[in-house]
Amino acid sequence: MWVGRRVAELPTPAFVVDEAVARRNAERMLQRCGALGLRLRPHMKTHKTLEGGELMTGGTRRGIVVSTLAEARFFAAGGFDDILYAYPLPFDKLEECAVLAQRLEAFQVLVDSRDALAQLRRRRLAHGVRWLVWMKLDCGNGRAGLRHTDPSALELARAIAQEAPEEVALAGIYAHCGNTYGCSGMQEIQAVAQATTAATLEFMGTLQEAGVTCPASSIGSTPSCSHPVADMGRLTEVHPGNYIFYDLQQVTIGSCQLEDVAVRVLTRVIGHYPHRNQLLVDCGWAGLSLHGLGQLPTGYALIEGHPDLKLVGMTQEHGRVEPVVGALDFSEFPLGSLLALIPYHACATAAMHPVYYIHAEGKVVATWKPVRGW
Amino acid sequence: MWVGRRVAELPTPAFVVDEAVARRNAERMLQRCGALGLRLRPHMKTHKTLEGGELMTGGTRRGIVVSTLAEARFFAAGGFDDILYAYPLPFDKLEECAVLAQRLEAFQVLVDSRDALAQLRRRRLAHGVRWLVWMKLDCGNGRAGLRHTDPSALELARAIAQEAPEEVALAGIYAHCGNTYGCSGMQEIQAVAQATTAATLEFMGTLQEAGVTCPASSIGSTPSCSHPVADMGRLTEVHPGNYIFYDLQQVTIGSCQLEDVAVRVLTRVIGHYPHRNQLLVDCGWAGLSLHGLGQLPTGYALIEGHPDLKLVGMTQEHGRVEPVVGALDFSEFPLGSLLALIPYHACATAAMHPVYYIHAEGKVVATWKPVRGW
Repeated sequence: MWVGRRVAELPTPAFVVDEAVARRNAERMLQRCGALGLRLRPHMKTHKTLEGGELMTGGTRRGIVVSTLAEARFFAAGGFDDILYAYPLPFDKLEECAVLAQRLEAFQVLVDSRDALAQLRRRRLAHGVRWLVWMKLDCGNGRAGLRHTDPSALELARAIAQEAPEEVALAGIYAHCGNTYGCSGMQEIQAVAQATTAATLEFMGTLQEAGVTCPASSIGSTPSCSHPVADMGRLTEVHPGNYIFYDLQQVTIGSCQLEDVAVRVLTRVIGHYPHRNQLLVDCGWAGLSLHGLGQLPTGYALIEGHPDLKLVGMTQEHGRVEPVVGALDFSEFPLGSLLALIPYHACATAAMHPVYYIHAEGKVVATWKPVRGW
Repeated sequence: MWVGRRVAELPTPAFVVDEAVARRNAERMLQRCGALGLRLRPHMKTHKTLEGGELMTGGTRRGIVVSTLAEARFFAAGGFDDILYAYPLPFDKLEECAVLAQRLEAFQVLVDSRDALAQLRRRRLAHGVRWLVWMKLDCGNGRAGLRHTDPSALELARAIAQEAPEEVALAGIYAHCGNTYGCSGMQEIQAVAQATTAATLEFMGTLQEAGVTCPASSIGSTPSCSHPVADMGRLTEVHPGNYIFYDLQQVTIGSCQLEDVAVRVLTRVIGHYPHRNQLLVDCGWAGLSLHGLGQLPTGYALIEGHPDLKLVGMTQEHGRVEPVVGALDFSEFPLGSLLALIPYHACATAAMHPVYYIHAEGKVVATWKPVRGW
């Protein structure tokens, strides 16, 4: 019902995506990976929409990463295949994983423990179908995965590859360089990307020496894949996700420029409070998330075209705006007028919205509906 | 599909509500208000479900507050009436407000400016139907509303009541004592409740002296209504919301005891990382929100039965857990085992879940589906 109308007519708060910018982000990442001879396996977690997946795969709908089973089901139902559920195998969801593994050409799971492998072995798939298993390596990020220097990493990879070759196959080695989120600038990002790549390649060498066949290796994060190092070309694939939208966090890290951020939350002025030099807007944490808290000189977000304003307070449905310094000129912001918030963390902001409004030069051209839940 | 099964079987992360506790919270608030001779107009923003509204209204489905138009439409479609959309009138939603005002017995809006009143007057309702308007008073909370000491508050109330009595009626005066959220303990809560009540009653007196008829006055917040002061009985109604669930924030403020918190996020252990003394659980900010950040000695939440554990890190779908002090006994938490997170802010956590699992003594008895969006 909104297609064809101006974004300025949308009820607020509204999550809007500049189609041209998102498309450019998607294409540049494909080109960047192509130039390195790397396969791009984009992560769906930021947008969780079929349309976003279509853009990020260059229309193939093949080769994606998801982080929830709900996403896996949703993308499978939407015609996607070669889906890697890159999450430490959740035992409560084993049966549903088996269903997907038997239905798709390639539904792949991830493990980082003997226990998880044992779970897979206890749930044998139909004759001729094997569990396609990636092993998670922790190359310094400190979340999931076995440390690449830990002898048990080789042992587990060997077990996946060789213990029951008719039931389970080692599909690849997976590392997430989430530690790039602590970086500032390209040099630091590339240092982490290089370290993660080197650790992964070293582990791939160890596997080869040990006679463990492993066809794929993948690392990823939006910062590292926005500024890849040459050695990443020696991996088989990468799996960034946020880059389709980017956000202020990525700008701050140095992954992209402000003009690359494809998303905004549109909000309207709903109150003038001259005695405390504040405006009220109709976007609170329910429309933005609290992820910007303490991260920006302009508060929870950046208000487009108004770097002199600060989003200082967020309750569920209200946002308080005041000038960084000086007195606010209220006549510039009449009640009902529109402001555009550039979010700090696009994944978190997108998660608050049941619909995204996609626009071309300010005109709504589509609505995307993300999957939620687990 | 989950009704009749144990909550321990639910796929995680799962938002679970103890029905008996929620019902007790709802009943106690009704009793507390009844004892004061106060009408309870519960706020729906925390749960946003028809079933929660049913409990909070004691089954009448009459007399509620909502903070989004989506909630207003949803509750109206669900058979609720006497709905107060207690949000500074958003000009982009005026037409939909008019539709509801003409369809329901009592759909009420809120204003705090002449501009908003002018908007209402420009959109005349059908013959015989008047805009039912509450005026928002700021009694020290510092968000929306006219300060009760500001002469323009009386002027606006008079204009609402008298400017066009066939088109617009002054239905009530509304104040939110959100400043109780900065309190610690009953004494501080009651001091704020008393100040807000006194300011509101003083303003009602001013209206009466000025010959402005106003049938209702309402203040509210879960802390103040959990520990009401006697003078609140001189108001006509109150409008708390969070109390149906309560949460750790309310425990910290002093609104309730830990046993009154009706909600948990169930999560499972998905990884053991002895080298860094950490567990990984399958709940990240997508299942909990980041609202607990920096608020609790146990991190982002309290892990039920394990006050010695700390939820130290949250990414989208992963939570990192470690002991507050000492070494973790991993054998106590096998992969796949269940933990229950008590959330810091139930409104924010509920907002992350497309379905709530309602249980009686650990058995799922219903699922509630909240409305989202705006």
